[in-house]
This record gives sequence, structure tokens and C-alpha cells, in this order.
Amino acid sequence: MELISIRELYKNREKYMDKKVEVGGWLRSIRDSKTFGFIVLNDGTYFEPLQVVYHDTMDNFSEIVKLNVGAAIIVKGTLVETPQAKQPFEIQADEIFIEGQSTGDYPLQKKRHSFEYLRSIAHLRPRTNTFQAVFRVRSLIAYAIHKFFQERDFVYVHTPIITGSDCEGAGEMFRVTTLDMAQLPKNPDGTIDYSEDFFGKETNLTVSGQLNGETYAQAFRNIYTFGPTFRAENSNTTRHAAEFWMIEPEIAFADLQDNMILAESMIKYIITYVMEHAPEEMKFFNQFVDKGLMERLNGVVNSEFGHVTYTEAIDILEKNNNKFDYKVSWGCDLQTEHERYLTEEVFKKPVFVTDYPKEIKAFYMKMNEDNKTVAAMDCLVPGIGEIIGGSQREDDYDKLISRMNELGLNVEDYGFYLDLRKYGSTRHAGFGLGFERCVMYLTGMSNIRDVVPFPRTVGNCEL
Amino acid sequence: MELISIRELYKNREKYMDKKVEVGGWLRSIRDSKTFGFIVLNDGTYFEPLQVVYHDTMDNFSEIVKLNVGAAIIVKGTLVETPQAKQPFEIQADEIFIEGQSTGDYPLQKKRHSFEYLRSIAHLRPRTNTFQAVFRVRSLIAYAIHKFFQERDFVYVHTPIITGSDCEGAGEMFRVTTLDMAQLPKNPDGTIDYSEDFFGKETNLTVSGQLNGETYAQAFRNIYTFGPTFRAENSNTTRHAAEFWMIEPEIAFADLQDNMILAESMIKYIITYVMEHAPEEMKFFNQFVDKGLMERLNGVVNSEFGHVTYTEAIDILEKNNNKFDYKVSWGCDLQTEHERYLTEEVFKKPVFVTDYPKEIKAFYMKMNEDNKTVAAMDCLVPGIGEIIGGSQREDDYDKLISRMNELGLNVEDYGFYLDLRKYGSTRHAGFGLGFERCVMYLTGMSNIRDVVPFPRTVGNCEL
Repeated sequence: MELISIRELYKNREKYMDKKVEVGGWLRSIRDSKTFGFIVLNDGTYFEPLQVVYHDTMDNFSEIVKLNVGAAIIVKGTLVETPQAKQPFEIQADEIFIEGQSTGDYPLQKKRHSFEYLRSIAHLRPRTNTFQAVFRVRSLIAYAIHKFFQERDFVYVHTPIITGSDCEGAGEMFRVTTLDMAQLPKNPDGTIDYSEDFFGKETNLTVSGQLNGETYAQAFRNIYTFGPTFRAENSNTTRHAAEFWMIEPEIAFADLQDNMILAESMIKYIITYVMEHAPEEMKFFNQFVDKGLMERLNGVVNSEFGHVTYTEAIDILEKNNNKFDYKVSWGCDLQTEHERYLTEEVFKKPVFVTDYPKEIKAFYMKMNEDNKTVAAMDCLVPGIGEIIGGSQREDDYDKLISRMNELGLNVEDYGFYLDLRKYGSTRHAGFGLGFERCVMYLTGMSNIRDVVPFPRTVGNCEL
Repeated sequence: MELISIRELYKNREKYMDKKVEVGGWLRSIRDSKTFGFIVLNDGTYFEPLQVVYHDTMDNFSEIVKLNVGAAIIVKGTLVETPQAKQPFEIQADEIFIEGQSTGDYPLQKKRHSFEYLRSIAHLRPRTNTFQAVFRVRSLIAYAIHKFFQERDFVYVHTPIITGSDCEGAGEMFRVTTLDMAQLPKNPDGTIDYSEDFFGKETNLTVSGQLNGETYAQAFRNIYTFGPTFRAENSNTTRHAAEFWMIEPEIAFADLQDNMILAESMIKYIITYVMEHAPEEMKFFNQFVDKGLMERLNGVVNSEFGHVTYTEAIDILEKNNNKFDYKVSWGCDLQTEHERYLTEEVFKKPVFVTDYPKEIKAFYMKMNEDNKTVAAMDCLVPGIGEIIGGSQREDDYDKLISRMNELGLNVEDYGFYLDLRKYGSTRHAGFGLGFERCVMYLTGMSNIRDVVPFPRTVGNCEL
């Protein structure tokens, strides 16, 4: 079969105008009068559908008029311009071949369905306008990220999904096991004998590829990861999923400044790429999902991101504490309300907040000279708050050990990580971008369940 | 810091020749005489290293000569041509700044280390020539795959990692749980109460994204997945890992023929891309890892892949049964020895074997009219055997149900999958490419543990 895609018809219409073409797709709607009818056809390759006009001169006219929404058909006919109509052209069908019928109980009828309802049919919702747009854009964002880093000669590293380490606290992790749960092997003292498990020890799903990523940055200089990560947090919010994808670049011979430059370029690159490659989808989101979307994204692309230290930010916020549910003072973590106030009201553009108190940041962040703050950075953007979190990494062996001891971490578990500080340590930095949060930001979708093809959340692991 | 990468020096050498440059990197070797010395520097951006010449005119000359292998340094100096030498240019250093020392116990000395030894230091092995080459090529292959599909407007779909279904038999799957193993909640009948588990039911790590991928192909026409998959097989071979990445394209309005065309183009595209973007690495593999590599890969790119049905293949193989450990007859699965014989001896190029007996293939493959074989395809390549497996999918609702019943599958578990055959079913097809096997094929590396950054195999989950 040589079916022309609807995308191709739109992109190179001159080539096909007034010629015979053959397209395949799914029926979005159908209506008829006595002697002819219209089909709105979508083939998944392009956001805009194609109008098909059919006549009772076709042998199977009576079958065609009875088609249900969702049916798959192949249409042969002539592409003609329709200067008077909403759509630029249509197909005058010579033949319509029914590839696959659709029954009358098809769950997607030509009416507005709620996102909640559509979540219950995750296998069919990509056939709707909204989810066609969301998941094509998701795909484009993923590719834009790869393209951005590969053009800069970053090496893509697949850090492991199953991990024997438990760097951010086992409470939030999913256990991975092949032990027979009904008959767990036991040690003499009654505890479970994990030496009989698949890997000969306790294993979990990764929460971050960063520490592994750092080992590759110390070999390739610039690397990035892009893979699934997991949190077994019992939080049922619109922003949390148990399974989500993360991008974690890591750069050697680089400091916090370099890190911020990289993050800013990446965000601008992604937005620009998507606007260029999915203008129809972006227009749709701006019209029907989030009216300020395009203005906000254009604002990001065209601004120079602001910079403020945590200490300065707290000064600003404290003066406005009357505006917040949660009052700030030096030492506290910033909540979304504070983050959004900073980026939306104070800076009116994306802003990096840097140099947070060491107590509220991870052990691996580089200690500043004040010995109170660390070289961390969070990137805040209008409309959402934090979108990226990163830091320069502690590259000094002794300082890292002493910080780990302070926090009661078991130094022996981090031998490989400490080796990096023993053998050719370099200034280095990196950050994490939650992929789903990025998709939400670019589409205006407000529930993480609506930007993941098959979302996994507490109590929900369907399909 | 504005460090120039060694890649940039090699790619645009004219721009920098006889000019001051600043580079950072890790010391691969160092030697000195009384008044000057040489450092071989690698910065991870390029396979070839950079020679640095230093003199006792530098203040810290005595420190430099004492540097150990693995140390990180920053060099300022002049790039000069070296027409008499092996390398095309070197840096005459004015200053060398020591970024990070390396201790004398650095596990990578300037000598040949065995792959076995290097596996025990997975965090450091990417600093060696072989693994620099392997993991840069791995990154390039991943990108080539994305590029291939995105250029053809395929939508990249993230199918779920944690899954509630168990399509290929629970015995080979990893369980995912947050239950307290020491105190498992029980039902009244003594079985484990999975309703208290994180997702409210039993969950596992995915073995394939195909069924989920099909749902998106029926919405977008052409999609691909690229993500990690898992097998809890207790097989300790050079070709099996418990965690590996798979690429699974799925195309609608397409049959087995279209599927083979897609697979052939993809393989040729990947090889061509890597040869163009990593010529130094490929030369290295050809010289030191697998002497026939380039010839074999060039053969693949320049051949039209062969086609043979399983039944024809068995005819050919039966006549040569004396050559095989495992004798073939119609109905048996092909072993690697048979696959390699077909592609290396009979066809002398890649070949698709199609239309296998239904008994040795999966339930979802399209039944042929003979009702004995299914529209399956395996792509065999010289040097390895099967690299791709795929099929046209059964798109007929009744035939699919009846095949599932024949095999004793629980139809209720596949409601979403059957829906695709109820609502606008189309001819469709797809295949799976094991990413690691692909990396092995392109690099000539013979152990899967050496193409995965941090391999997971039975009893092994380090770092």
C-alpha cells in the first residue's frame, strides 16, 4: 500500500492538487444527505483532519453512510481546493474501502468528553484532538532534548533502572524482587534472606540516575541521561506520578554558572523546537487548554533569565509575607506560592535561585565558602514555579566525606562516588528536568495523568 | 571557563593553529626528561587524545612531573603542527593548572586491562579507549534511532515500565512492590493481600511495550517505543541481561512487507549514521575488537536483504543437517547455528525469514491463510543471527479471540487490546530491536556486559 499521509498533503499540497491520491485514516465524523456525504478523516499524522466527500455513485454508498465514528477506511480520490470553506482542500472520493468497522458503542463520540472519562480509556484517548496534540508534542519534546544535547556532543548514558543502592531513602522506593512472596526464604534470625533474590541482594527501582551519570561525566566531560525514574510516594496530586521520566545532564570542568547557561539554553531550545514543529498543536493548546500559553512561552524564549540568591530571595519574600499562606524566613524551603511570586510578580520572567542553605539540599552539593549555603540552583518559570533543580557537585574528597558523616550516610555505600574525587576530580555540575513537568509546561495541561500515555499513580496501574 | 574541546581542535584545527588555546582533560600518560616532558591528554569529547609538551620554564614543573595517570588538568598553550609525528598537532604548554590529582593506586594504568577486570570498575572503565568508543557509539546509535523515526514523523511513545499485566508469563518477570516483606498483609485464606500494595494489585516490570504501543499506532498510525525492558531469566550468558533497552516500532495501514522495508531501512540508517559520526571509534573496533567488522557492516548497508519463508529455509537447512549440532525439521525453532548458516553461508547477506509455524510464535501474530503459519518475520544478519523479530498483528477480532482461547489465555485481561480490533481495526505490523544486541553488532563487542554502562545480570547489580 502506498498511502499518502495527511501531513504530507498539508505540507506539499501543490504537489497533489487536482491529482489522484490515496489516504487511510479513522473516521472522526460522518454526515450525509440523500446523494452524497462528508467524512472528517484523521490519520494520526497531522493535527488537522481531511474532509472526504463521497457520492451515491459509489457501489458501497449504502455501507459508507452507515459507518460509525472510529471506523478505519482507505479513500481513493482527487484532492481539490476549497477556497470557500474552512479547510483548504478536500478529497472527492472515487472509492472508499472499509478497512475496519467500528461498532456503535465506540467510546469516543463526536462530543466533548471530560479528561476524567478519557483517563479511563487510556488506550483510546490518543484518538481525540487534545491527546493527539499532547502526545505528539510529548514526542517532539523528547526528540528536541536529544537533539539539543547531541548537537553539543553530549553522550547519552543509560543509567540503570534496577539499583542496589538506596541514595534518597528506601521509604520512597519500589522494591524489585523475584522471591516467592508466599514462601520467603529466611535467615536463621528470621529476617528475609535476600541472598536468594535474583541479584543476591535487596534491589529497588531508581529514583535518579545522577550519581551514575557523574561517573560518565568524569570520562566524557558532557553527558546526559534520559530515562524513567520512580517514587513510591503516597501522594495523590495532579503533579505526582509514581513513574516518570527525567533528563539529567552532567558537565565536567564546569561550575554553577555553566550549569545555568546550559539549562537556560536547553529550555529555550525545546520551546523553539516545539513551536516550529507543532504550530497547529500549540495553537490548539493556546485556544482551548491555556489561553496565556503562547505569550508565556514566547516570554521565556525572549527573556534573559534572572538570577537571585536564596538569601536575596528570602529578603524579597519576607517583605511580602502577608501575601503567602506559608510565611518564609531564612532556612525554610520555598513553596510553589513563593516560587511563582518570584518569577511572576518580581522578575516577570524565568529566574534562577541559587545558593540555598545546606540543610534543605542534598549531600552532594558543593559547599560555598560561607559553609552555610551550597552551590544549588533552582530554575523557576512563570505559571509553574520550579522546573529544574541542579547544583555544582562537591568535588573535594575530604569535604564530601565530612558532609556525609554529618548527615549520617554510610560512606562505604558510596565508594564508587568517592573514587571520582580521588582520581582526577574536576569541578562539575548538573541538573534534573522532570520530563512530564516539562510537557505540562509546554502544553498547559494541568494534570500529570494527562501527559503520560499510561499513568501510574497510587492505586492505579491500568493497561 | 572557556575550555576548547579536543573534538573541536580536531574538527576545526585551522582555526586554532599557532594560537593560544585552553583545554581541560584527564591524563592518560606522562613521561619526562630533565627539562621537558609529554602528557597524553584525553577530555572525553574525542577518541584521539591530545599531546601536551611542557617545559621546566613553568613554575610548577616539579609538581607536573609527579602527576599520576588519571589526574585532571587544564592546559594553556599554543597549538602547533607536528608534521613529523604520529599525531597531527600538539600543545606547547605555557601553564598547566592541576584541577584534580590522582593517587598512585589509580586502577587504570597505562597497560592493557582485561574486560573482566574492567567490569569490576564500571564507574571508571569509560575512561579507557575501548569503553570510550563503546559508549560513545551506544549514544550515537540511540540518537540515530530517534532521528530515523522522527524524520519519518513517527511518534515516540513512552510505554509503561511498571505493569499490571503479565503477557509473557509471570515466571520471567520481576515483581514490583512496596509491601513490607517482613510483615506481608494476608487475606483470610492465607494468600497475600495485594490490595494493600502500592497499586492495589500485583505489579511487575514490563517485558515489552508492544501491546501498549499498538494502541498508539491505532491513533497516530506510526509510532515507536524506546525504553527499558526486563527479563528475570536465570541465564548467565554473554547475550542476556536482566535489564535492557528495546525499540518497538508499530505501523498501522501496513503489512509484513511494509514492516520488512522499515526494518531494513532502519538498520542501514543506523550503520550509516554511526560510520559517519564515529569513524575513529569504528576504525578502532575494526582493528582491535573484531577484524571483519567494517567489511560486514558495509556488506549490510550495500546489500538488498534476502527473503525466505520458514518452510523454504527448513528445506535448505534439512539438506545440511550434518553440519548442525541441533538437527532441524519443520516445526522446530531455529537456533543461532541455523540462523547464521542461512545468513552467512546461504544468502551471504542479511535475510528475512517469514511465515513461521504458529506454534512457535506469539498469540498476536496474524494467521496466514494456510492456518498453520503466521505472518512473522525474523531478520538475520551475518555475525550474529537474529537481530530483529516482528510480525503483522492479528487484526481480526474473532480470529484473535479464537487463537487466545486455543492458547488458554484469559480474554478478559486483554480487553483494551481487543478493543483495537473492534473500533477501526487496521492491518498493522511492528517489530522489536534489542538495543544492546544492536550495539554489540555495530561494535563487535561479544559480551552484553561490555555494552551496558552498569549491567544487571543474575547475581549482579553493582553501582
